[in-house]
Amino acid sequence: MLGLQTMNAPVALTPELLTQLTAIVGENRIKTDADSLQNWGRDHTKHFDPNPSVIVFPSSTEQVQTIVKLANQFNVAVTPSGGRTGLSAGAVAANGEIVVSMDKMNQILEFFPADRMVRVQAGVVTEQLQNYAEEQGMYYPVDFASSGSSQIGGNIGTNAGGIKVIKYGMTRNWVLGLTVVTGKGDVLRLNKGMIKNATGYALQHLFIGGEGTLGLVTEAEIKLERQPQDLQVLVLGVPDFDAIMPVLHAFQAKIDLTAFEFFGELAMQKVLANGHVQRPFETECPFYVLLEFEAPFEPIMDKAMEIFEHSMEQGWVLDGVMSQSLEQVHSLWRLREDISESIAPFTPYKNDISVLITHVPAFIKEIDSIVNENYPDFEICWFGHIGDGNLHLNILKPADLTKDEFFAKCQVVNKYVFDTVKKYDGSISAEHGVGMTKKPYLEYTRSAEEIEYMKALKKVFDPNGIMNPGKLFDL
Amino acid sequence: MLGLQTMNAPVALTPELLTQLTAIVGENRIKTDADSLQNWGRDHTKHFDPNPSVIVFPSSTEQVQTIVKLANQFNVAVTPSGGRTGLSAGAVAANGEIVVSMDKMNQILEFFPADRMVRVQAGVVTEQLQNYAEEQGMYYPVDFASSGSSQIGGNIGTNAGGIKVIKYGMTRNWVLGLTVVTGKGDVLRLNKGMIKNATGYALQHLFIGGEGTLGLVTEAEIKLERQPQDLQVLVLGVPDFDAIMPVLHAFQAKIDLTAFEFFGELAMQKVLANGHVQRPFETECPFYVLLEFEAPFEPIMDKAMEIFEHSMEQGWVLDGVMSQSLEQVHSLWRLREDISESIAPFTPYKNDISVLITHVPAFIKEIDSIVNENYPDFEICWFGHIGDGNLHLNILKPADLTKDEFFAKCQVVNKYVFDTVKKYDGSISAEHGVGMTKKPYLEYTRSAEEIEYMKALKKVFDPNGIMNPGKLFDL
Repeated sequence: MLGLQTMNAPVALTPELLTQLTAIVGENRIKTDADSLQNWGRDHTKHFDPNPSVIVFPSSTEQVQTIVKLANQFNVAVTPSGGRTGLSAGAVAANGEIVVSMDKMNQILEFFPADRMVRVQAGVVTEQLQNYAEEQGMYYPVDFASSGSSQIGGNIGTNAGGIKVIKYGMTRNWVLGLTVVTGKGDVLRLNKGMIKNATGYALQHLFIGGEGTLGLVTEAEIKLERQPQDLQVLVLGVPDFDAIMPVLHAFQAKIDLTAFEFFGELAMQKVLANGHVQRPFETECPFYVLLEFEAPFEPIMDKAMEIFEHSMEQGWVLDGVMSQSLEQVHSLWRLREDISESIAPFTPYKNDISVLITHVPAFIKEIDSIVNENYPDFEICWFGHIGDGNLHLNILKPADLTKDEFFAKCQVVNKYVFDTVKKYDGSISAEHGVGMTKKPYLEYTRSAEEIEYMKALKKVFDPNGIMNPGKLFDL
Repeated sequence: MLGLQTMNAPVALTPELLTQLTAIVGENRIKTDADSLQNWGRDHTKHFDPNPSVIVFPSSTEQVQTIVKLANQFNVAVTPSGGRTGLSAGAVAANGEIVVSMDKMNQILEFFPADRMVRVQAGVVTEQLQNYAEEQGMYYPVDFASSGSSQIGGNIGTNAGGIKVIKYGMTRNWVLGLTVVTGKGDVLRLNKGMIKNATGYALQHLFIGGEGTLGLVTEAEIKLERQPQDLQVLVLGVPDFDAIMPVLHAFQAKIDLTAFEFFGELAMQKVLANGHVQRPFETECPFYVLLEFEAPFEPIMDKAMEIFEHSMEQGWVLDGVMSQSLEQVHSLWRLREDISESIAPFTPYKNDISVLITHVPAFIKEIDSIVNENYPDFEICWFGHIGDGNLHLNILKPADLTKDEFFAKCQVVNKYVFDTVKKYDGSISAEHGVGMTKKPYLEYTRSAEEIEYMKALKKVFDPNGIMNPGKLFDL
């Protein structure tokens, strides 16, 4: 019922609207059967039941514009839909919305070699872009577990991050231009692919991370990068969390890291139990770090060995292994990348939070002690991107609790966690967005004044409140 | 009279307002004498006569907030003032404004080594930040001719670029957080230094490049980078403009460039005539490129030599020189950096434009031919940052024209130039901002719809229209 709390509750689909939508996209590009409504009405979350009225599959910016104008005229809400891999219910249509799926807007439109840039439609799948870039001898560096199905438009809507942010930054860094249809139905071509353009407000940055609440992204100019050369991976075991920071500093001072990830022994055990990979070295350690860097020149490897040995001498590192081949690079990465899948059977309660790197050690200790005190039977599986302060806190369900009992208790933990996030000026959603699941907690990160400004901006682009209502905040 | 075209023309300063302003900042931090009004009422442009009512020098965000609230109450306009190095009259107070100078908010507040980040007040001078970073063993990479006097707040207001954008990006890339006072008088702490924060609209990106029209930036969290290692510079002479592109591609494919600049023989001659540097090699060439890269490892230099020789064989390069010492790095850079100063006596008519790199060769040819046809006696001095599509087009005044005659003709040229910029989907201001000088041309880069949205956003943050009115657009 969340969508109905909006000021301007959209009304349901009428036969007349359905006829007009069909006229826009064609009979083969519209679905109202129950299975389709279930499928395209949801993302990767399971907390809200999908209940859209209709799914449309436009093929051009012009069609999207006509749909949005019609939605305004009929006062029906619109939910943009990409690869439906979101983890915050940002793309769940739970209240009779028109779901605008980008599945058929999946063309790579143009490559600009001199600009190292590509123009794509919003429905291009992340992996499709990565592969296309590779074919051009280039590289698209935003990468994460769901790259095989997430779409560029969705990545932009949530400013997706992932595992290479320490070097390459978030999706925002790779967007040189956007074509959007605003909630009002205007088509804006924002920034048109330029690196330098100092002509007023950078409107594209509102749509990046705007979760489809201001309008729909239909096309984007995306910057590409040269391919990484001779990637090497180290996995190191450390005696306690505090040892991770000097290791990060020692490597970062001498080597440009492309990744610096961490995970706890519990995560290691779950991944090993999953059966696809082996323990990288014998020593069992409380925490592990995985770091990656380019080593096209011999002296870089020498430096890495030197820092590794120094870290052992200092007692920061107990054991470690370095990749000897590209195959080993991939298998070492699986220790980190398989965590989500390996813990899925334990119904994890997920939180995706961020604090300054400076505050990470104190933050982790506080959360550990809060959870241990209140719920000594809960196991916390920590992992995440230390290099950018992004922590994935996953609480595993004890076998003797039902899912409902467990989630009820987690709601209490949540409050503690978010109080601690607020205390450290952190973010309640580092890279998953707010959607509906984090909406009640938005004020732990954004001030009341900021939220008021956000609502006022929303009204500028979407005066009738039809764009993805009930996400981010209620009007 | 431009400021008076705003919808909500602010009224003049009253004795009561003056008393209250004095109470906020103290008697030593307020100036109304004619010299001070002239000095702090202008930036580096000379097209508009400064005419502010009063200059105040607050020392804290709270003082700035109180000033803005007072300005709203008395309906007087506020112009933020930094290092006054702007080239678009964005910081000129021409209509009785309160000038809020950041000169006394020049403290570096805190360094976060783990985050490689520093928190600064807006009045910190760019060079002061660069030096501070160096003392910490770090690097602040945004650099340009006016770094010795420009302030961080002003850099943020115009999203300053400069000579290292090809590797490091614009100021926007280095801002991890902002404290702002909005036109309404609210203090917002935006993004608080985080790399990952997916909690709604990224409001900081509106203030970056917002030219002080939405509010004042008072503090910023700025990311630092590791120091560049063993920089090397090559200066190459090329037979025509078209040869520059294959040279860029050949180097960029193998080496991470930190700069790729170009300039014409006319610029070279003016710099040489200035007497501080010598011609880098004997061959006189129509165009020159200066490229820079890090070479901490021997094989990188070997690669560079290989590409240089290949470029000679292909006829892309006629002659060239490579730095043999840090001293030579600096003297080769002066060939490019001294251009602005060297052409200043020729009363240049400056344009700072940007198009996709793909379009640069065609664009330059079109402009050259338009100017040659219409004004065969005009000399064009081209230089700029090819690596990011940013061209500085400087037309030198023929000795037989008065300044007024010359500028009148340049206004006609301007129209041609901006028509061509529009044809190529480029920007009429790549890195200097819009201010008042480019305001009449904004629609050559931004659509009518975009400008309407910008005006509506302005009203959200500054409903009374007191923040730097008459800049960017008229309401």
